[in-house]
Amino acid sequence: MDQSIIVTVDIVLFTLSDSRLKIVLQRREREPYAQQLALPGGYIHTDTDRDSRAAAERVLQQKTGIVSPYLEQLYTFTGGVRDPRGWSVSIVYYALVNESHLIANEDHAFTLIEADALPDLPFDHNRIATFALKRLRDKSAYTSLPVHLLPELFTLTELQQTYEQVLGTPLDKSVFRRKLPELDFLEAVPNAIRQGKHRPAQLYRLKPNLRLAVFDKTV
Amino acid sequence: MDQSIIVTVDIVLFTLSDSRLKIVLQRREREPYAQQLALPGGYIHTDTDRDSRAAAERVLQQKTGIVSPYLEQLYTFTGGVRDPRGWSVSIVYYALVNESHLIANEDHAFTLIEADALPDLPFDHNRIATFALKRLRDKSAYTSLPVHLLPELFTLTELQQTYEQVLGTPLDKSVFRRKLPELDFLEAVPNAIRQGKHRPAQLYRLKPNLRLAVFDKTV
Repeated sequence: MDQSIIVTVDIVLFTLSDSRLKIVLQRREREPYAQQLALPGGYIHTDTDRDSRAAAERVLQQKTGIVSPYLEQLYTFTGGVRDPRGWSVSIVYYALVNESHLIANEDHAFTLIEADALPDLPFDHNRIATFALKRLRDKSAYTSLPVHLLPELFTLTELQQTYEQVLGTPLDKSVFRRKLPELDFLEAVPNAIRQGKHRPAQLYRLKPNLRLAVFDKTV
Repeated sequence: MDQSIIVTVDIVLFTLSDSRLKIVLQRREREPYAQQLALPGGYIHTDTDRDSRAAAERVLQQKTGIVSPYLEQLYTFTGGVRDPRGWSVSIVYYALVNESHLIANEDHAFTLIEADALPDLPFDHNRIATFALKRLRDKSAYTSLPVHLLPELFTLTELQQTYEQVLGTPLDKSVFRRKLPELDFLEAVPNAIRQGKHRPAQLYRLKPNLRLAVFDKTV
């Protein structure tokens, strides 16, 4: 260890807004890059953070008000040139929330940008966001991950639309519905039917305590 | 940043030896846990390491002599209690090599332990090794990853045996051979036939510059 290394956590926070997959950005309060839009992030506090996950949860809560979303470690970005302050390590997490959590915390300032159309961001945040989008898309193809973008109760049509937005591609309805039982992550909510302009639709929710269901990937 | 954080890289190095999947351990030279078997690892050198991947490659070369194996970032393990020296970050990589690379570098001291039967290791190295084994197994189920455990030239039977060792389960030969073209990562070596006690077997190798081929995982 030749010199002190800067250790931070950064968070790529995904949400669905206006039926589009978006990433939450915030204006940086301090130098470097003060006032520029960037991913929410902050230093690890070794006196209070148990580990980097706890640091990510704390930073997310302090900067966005959001508590316990789906949150997973993405990757660690490192090196001597990514931060003008010196050799740095950013342990990056990605998180998924329904937009209602952002609306409920609107005393915090957010900027939502379509995940596929980010502006130039400071540090290596474009690279980080691209990496997170790829992970989200890859993982969504064989897991229940996109369900965390939905409100608590949703129809199967809304679920399919969410998968389509995340994957960036239309899905065949019959294939999609045939795959769902394999995931076994949904439960129909008793007596919860949404009346719409089409026929009434059963409402579903994630099974209790289930964070992520995975399709069978074996050879 | 309340106090300086210890930043290291550690490497889970897999190989196939006596037809069993093994992890390479080494005796630690220094405190803490001097003389105990542990994963190869070391501090990041901010003056010479471009990033953590370069640090992992340097540490692996210095401690095992191995140059440019298949190497991938696994996960970052962090916290205030995992290292007695203080709040620490270990950016962990996993690597796969054919056993010949270990034999060629036997001036370095290795201990090979079956991946499923590790002794008690210092720090959180048991947790790290378990995590790496799970990643290797998960990823091997839908990629060409296990090929990096083989020598340069191999038969399809050897390839299947390697998958079986990594996945920890027997595979049906006809299903396995039907899946292979999907991966499209092999090429038959012209005029390379191994004569054995059974009928002659064509030898294959990884296509040039191909590190990892992935099965289609889309819904």
